[in-house]
Amino acid sequence: MAESVERLQQRVQELERELAQERNRRAPGSGEGGGGRVRIEKMSSEVVDSNPYSRLMALKRMGIVSDYEKIRTFAVAVVGVGGVGSVTAEMLTRCGIGKLLLFDYDKVELANMNRLFFQPHQAGLSKVQAAEHTLRNINPDVLFEVHNYNITTVENFQHFMDRISNGGLEEGKPVDLVLSCVDNFEARMTINTACNELGQTWMESGVSENAVSGHIQLIIPGESACFACAPPLVVAANIDEKTLKREGVCAASLPTTMGVVAGILVQNVLKFLLNFGTVSFYLGYNAMQDFFPTMSMKPNPQCDDRNCRKQQEEYKKKVAALPKQEVMQEEEEIIHEDNEWGIELVSEVSEEELKNSSGPVPDLPEGITVAYTIPKKQEDSVTEVTVEDSGESLEDLMAKMKNM
Amino acid sequence: MAESVERLQQRVQELERELAQERNRRAPGSGEGGGGRVRIEKMSSEVVDSNPYSRLMALKRMGIVSDYEKIRTFAVAVVGVGGVGSVTAEMLTRCGIGKLLLFDYDKVELANMNRLFFQPHQAGLSKVQAAEHTLRNINPDVLFEVHNYNITTVENFQHFMDRISNGGLEEGKPVDLVLSCVDNFEARMTINTACNELGQTWMESGVSENAVSGHIQLIIPGESACFACAPPLVVAANIDEKTLKREGVCAASLPTTMGVVAGILVQNVLKFLLNFGTVSFYLGYNAMQDFFPTMSMKPNPQCDDRNCRKQQEEYKKKVAALPKQEVMQEEEEIIHEDNEWGIELVSEVSEEELKNSSGPVPDLPEGITVAYTIPKKQEDSVTEVTVEDSGESLEDLMAKMKNM
Repeated sequence: MAESVERLQQRVQELERELAQERNRRAPGSGEGGGGRVRIEKMSSEVVDSNPYSRLMALKRMGIVSDYEKIRTFAVAVVGVGGVGSVTAEMLTRCGIGKLLLFDYDKVELANMNRLFFQPHQAGLSKVQAAEHTLRNINPDVLFEVHNYNITTVENFQHFMDRISNGGLEEGKPVDLVLSCVDNFEARMTINTACNELGQTWMESGVSENAVSGHIQLIIPGESACFACAPPLVVAANIDEKTLKREGVCAASLPTTMGVVAGILVQNVLKFLLNFGTVSFYLGYNAMQDFFPTMSMKPNPQCDDRNCRKQQEEYKKKVAALPKQEVMQEEEEIIHEDNEWGIELVSEVSEEELKNSSGPVPDLPEGITVAYTIPKKQEDSVTEVTVEDSGESLEDLMAKMKNM
Repeated sequence: MAESVERLQQRVQELERELAQERNRRAPGSGEGGGGRVRIEKMSSEVVDSNPYSRLMALKRMGIVSDYEKIRTFAVAVVGVGGVGSVTAEMLTRCGIGKLLLFDYDKVELANMNRLFFQPHQAGLSKVQAAEHTLRNINPDVLFEVHNYNITTVENFQHFMDRISNGGLEEGKPVDLVLSCVDNFEARMTINTACNELGQTWMESGVSENAVSGHIQLIIPGESACFACAPPLVVAANIDEKTLKREGVCAASLPTTMGVVAGILVQNVLKFLLNFGTVSFYLGYNAMQDFFPTMSMKPNPQCDDRNCRKQQEEYKKKVAALPKQEVMQEEEEIIHEDNEWGIELVSEVSEEELKNSSGPVPDLPEGITVAYTIPKKQEDSVTEVTVEDSGESLEDLMAKMKNM
């Protein structure tokens, strides 16, 4: 009996040791669920191997960013934590962003393993939970708020709007930026509706179904074209449209294209938040030919979204109230961005498509084309596209834009 | 006493359960150190959540790649597993490359956490070991060979040459491609020396010290300019050179710029290996202005590297032996790549720099400039740059190129 107790006590010690080793392996030097490093109260520029911020703070010494520490004061919402969204969230986490809000309702699947970030052992977990666990471990200084739901349902949309308005670094303040990393038209239009209503600046991103082109777009409600102002633009990949849309097949994707799109998206976010370089209103990526067109679009005064039109009026008032000098700078900003690299303007939209479409079709740089054209509506039946208003026409568009 | 035994038995059960949970957390459904999924013998196009290759095989259906499965027949060596190399290796792993050979001699540090891939709990491990563990878990179908050494020492250089020549998917065959993801001039020149001697096609990558520009370059010995043919090119970031080079400070880096460079590098690798799209000879990235210049350079007939000149002769013979039709295609290939997007050629190298430099200074697209100019040498003292031949001049260059 005494022997048995001794044996059991030895076994307990053995197991406790193994458990401690196992936990340590997962996250050394920390307790249950903790990260691999302790929290850091203040960002330091000190050049030592143990400082995770030394290479970022060096941006100040290099003359690129004047106040890198400011990154900690920003809250960014990432909607869609898939191939682009997960890498976007990881980059922002490693950059030391103040707070990240993640929205997604998908589960991790082995079919996602051809893109960066998620790992096979996470299959079956919700994407936001799996992402939060990994990201918290990478940088415990970032605050995380995750929502495992579909933003396009009525109830969730209200909650989504509430979190955009109140989920800032300080509760009750709005977030600083919303990033759309979703893979379908309905979710994009939902984010657009929310941001127009709230006057919330956001950035849109997308990758084509054939995996070889993508884009990012900055939307400042009232100042630049919203998602409803004009058909969304895609970078033409010079392949037959007919091969793209077939029933019962999945979209192609590549870690390369999604990594590049996440990279140019977060670069634009850093430039926007930390005030360096030129922030792009639109940047496309054609992987087949290594072509990266830029452009910008003014909002459509006849935009279907009532809140977009309202924001346009408010922006006009704001500009009118500025001293003359500043007005010129404001105008210059957009003009400067437009076709900065002397790319020849050649519209690739056919005459017939133009006739059948409504809304302004912008002068498009070579290689960019519209994802679809909106069928002409009768003048007196202009309806606003909202989350609930998913009529036949919107569904048609969704079918066309599925997995864009 | 009986109670005590019962309590201990309960404790043993409890601990065993916790240990199993903990191990499961790390790698569910697998044994010690195992991966998160079983190996897959044959790539399938089946559209099911459990197929990690469905989105890649869809590239065939989309008309982008004719034979995606061929990816499994290639072996790629990645030299330098840092901010660019680790993401490069992860992308190739997720794409299902046949074999990866990794070379690095650094350890993971917390100071690396501002870039993708490594995690805080890996601090202290060798980069190649940590990378192999993560990558094998992500895709157990890939073969890995890792070398934890500095390729620039005489002994290691011989071993490196041997692995490039014999470390292909089938032992004894050469690798299909070498990728340079190193952060210093000496290592780049070492890879250049090896590849010129072996006639090995390779791609070079680099990110600037101020973190806001980068480039990739394809080097086919004898066909395109090697690293010794001309000063390496960098994408000008429009910042004061004086702020860049100071003693005792670390280089800045960003996960965004490094992610974009890894993305365009691996995209070029996929296009090269799987034969789709246009392979770029040079693609630059200026993050400040979202500018992506492309160009190509012919090799320098007076290149310092004897093996480069030898490869040039062999390439000429090869082209001369081709039927006339194919020669024109060969020529066209380069011409087509050169300045495809109509970017105006404006040399930014000053007259004085040109006078003081040796070798051809190419017509450079706007925004690209040379990293340094090589001081003129006396005509009769042309020495070959080899691994051992690190004279004063090379060290000067190294100091200038440190952490490029």
